Amino acid sequence: MSLIEDLNWRHAVKAYDSTKKVSEDDLNKILEAARLAPTSSGLQPFRVIVVENQELKEKMVKGALNPEVMRDSSHVLVFAAWDSYSDEKIDEVYDHHTDVRELPKGRFSSYTDQIKQIYGAQTPEQHFAHTARQTYIALGLAMAQAAELKIDSTPAEGFSNEVVDEILDLRELGLKSVTLLYLGYRDTEKDWLSNMKKVRIPMEEFIIRK
Amino acid sequence: MSLIEDLNWRHAVKAYDSTKKVSEDDLNKILEAARLAPTSSGLQPFRVIVVENQELKEKMVKGALNPEVMRDSSHVLVFAAWDSYSDEKIDEVYDHHTDVRELPKGRFSSYTDQIKQIYGAQTPEQHFAHTARQTYIALGLAMAQAAELKIDSTPAEGFSNEVVDEILDLRELGLKSVTLLYLGYRDTEKDWLSNMKKVRIPMEEFIIRK
Repeated sequence: MSLIEDLNWRHAVKAYDSTKKVSEDDLNKILEAARLAPTSSGLQPFRVIVVENQELKEKMVKGALNPEVMRDSSHVLVFAAWDSYSDEKIDEVYDHHTDVRELPKGRFSSYTDQIKQIYGAQTPEQHFAHTARQTYIALGLAMAQAAELKIDSTPAEGFSNEVVDEILDLRELGLKSVTLLYLGYRDTEKDWLSNMKKVRIPMEEFIIRK
Repeated sequence: MSLIEDLNWRHAVKAYDSTKKVSEDDLNKILEAARLAPTSSGLQPFRVIVVENQELKEKMVKGALNPEVMRDSSHVLVFAAWDSYSDEKIDEVYDHHTDVRELPKGRFSSYTDQIKQIYGAQTPEQHFAHTARQTYIALGLAMAQAAELKIDSTPAEGFSNEVVDEILDLRELGLKSVTLLYLGYRDTEKDWLSNMKKVRIPMEEFIIRK
């Protein structure tokens, strides 16, 4: 199957079969696609929290637009972005880069000095606006990987960030929740979207040629 | 090839062979992956501008961090998001949904009323923060599709939004540029990243299990 076939296959499932669980092997592939997502300056300024525990899910549904979807999913992935950039975080990433590439520490310092200067002139709000954007790349690739495995997924912004951040102790980790991704297997009878045509705006409207 | 193999193959290419062009067929597949990207409420609040014309590219490089990369690429895709939501835009999308699905117009009105209320209480700045995020899903899938075709790509936030918006007349279309994606074929001698190991933070740091 090609990516385009996978993207045509998938849709944001509205009802999961709570008896079916995503295997550990498949879950790891979905997480690996998220980990491989390209990000600005390669900083990967977010983490993915994997919630499988039903009690935790029950707490997280408070304030969610589609509580049953979260509740009946196999796993909830929480995409949570850095609340801010810092020189230390940037150095940590680039020290890892030079380690893996067997290069002298500081090899990329002219570049990291540049990005430290840019982020140093910004507010934490501006940082989070930027880190949050990056999570969407990984969110998209995780959905594509799920589809490749014929695993259903539902991206969700309709939840209480406060509740999720609190329950998962994200503040202490310097993280703030951005999106959720529910994973599982659709309940074809209850998922009203299953039998509907996929709709996208026509290519000639979506694309502007210059 | 699997998505994970494709993602491991790709990297943000730093030098393109300006003599090699991406074929129209391949370009259309990359655009199709972007078009199929899931978005919040299915609104697809962005467009992709395809720039192939060398003179236009020369104008757009003003203010870009890596002008040669843009200049030597085969195509530049500009991901540009709606500057704001409006009731009219939401109705237009959902009228298209009901048309394609052969459902009565207004079939989703309880839902669209809800999102109109949410966006109606927000500022254009909040709208754009949200529409801009959605573009990153499509950006990621376009890169994945390019990689599946063994076409190189470089995502770029380092450019002048003002210059690009002006040159492409985006304001008149109610759009604002968010990211660029350069497409083409790497110049293996000049692309210093080609021979470096891909670096990502280890899975055990990237994932938090709950």
